Amino acid sequence: MATTIRSATPADVPQILAYIQALATYEREPDAVTATEEGLMRDGFGDRPFYSCMIAEQDGQAAGFALYFFNYSTWMGRPGIYLEDLFVPPEFRGLGIGKALLQRVAAVAVEMHCPRLQWQVLDWNTPSIDFYRAMGAEFMDEWRTARVSGEALMRLAEAEGKQP
Amino acid sequence: MATTIRSATPADVPQILAYIQALATYEREPDAVTATEEGLMRDGFGDRPFYSCMIAEQDGQAAGFALYFFNYSTWMGRPGIYLEDLFVPPEFRGLGIGKALLQRVAAVAVEMHCPRLQWQVLDWNTPSIDFYRAMGAEFMDEWRTARVSGEALMRLAEAEGKQP
Repeated sequence: MATTIRSATPADVPQILAYIQALATYEREPDAVTATEEGLMRDGFGDRPFYSCMIAEQDGQAAGFALYFFNYSTWMGRPGIYLEDLFVPPEFRGLGIGKALLQRVAAVAVEMHCPRLQWQVLDWNTPSIDFYRAMGAEFMDEWRTARVSGEALMRLAEAEGKQP
Repeated sequence: MATTIRSATPADVPQILAYIQALATYEREPDAVTATEEGLMRDGFGDRPFYSCMIAEQDGQAAGFALYFFNYSTWMGRPGIYLEDLFVPPEFRGLGIGKALLQRVAAVAVEMHCPRLQWQVLDWNTPSIDFYRAMGAEFMDEWRTARVSGEALMRLAEAEGKQP
């Protein structure tokens, strides 16, 4: 009945990729994942880590994950933590595992003197929104997220230096 | 009449802080900035950099900045670039400097094989929203941003390991 939270190791990469795929399916984008084990290994456990990851275990069995990285608040002049993914598989829900993962990431933030822990949630995901609110989260609905990717990113980069 | 974009150096830190303050004022939060030159120096130019910064110059004079860091896309299995701040002071607007800064950051993203460049904008900031759309940005309005900070973050961290 015991939940433990531990840092991920390279041996967890296949499980991390499986969780990323399961989360994308839950988020109604089952075909969006092009990540590979090689890429996740390089970017999480190589010379230049781009993310950190915690694994939850329930009675010794993998039961969810939290994947995060440092962002930066120029107002605070401090790094913060951005929680990219938090996922508990359906068969392990209702045991407080998501809460335990979120608490552990919050503890990392406090240890690192990060004044903020931030993440995003889909607007239709009411159960998660309610859960996050109960955890003390505020919603910053005046901010809109913009993204340039793919062809548009290439065009923007190629235009560099070509205009006055 | 020439705009140039260059990487920031430690000597730019006072200017960077002044731009951060000017941007916070533009964003209607003039008292929100608690960042210091010491903090910006440590976090941008120390042993463990948390951000990168580009300075625009117009005829040799500082004319704006772009401050960014790497985030991580688990769907893509690649780091991306998150643009935290983009600012051109009023006296330098209308010269294409914001566009030149955005293009340079896009070029860094492409060089680093980052599939995405992302940022946030306040919902009332119509001039910027129109500009970003013209630059090829899409708006991800189905995502809401959640944040835990201050007392709520401390409480969440302190609760770690105390619940079943």
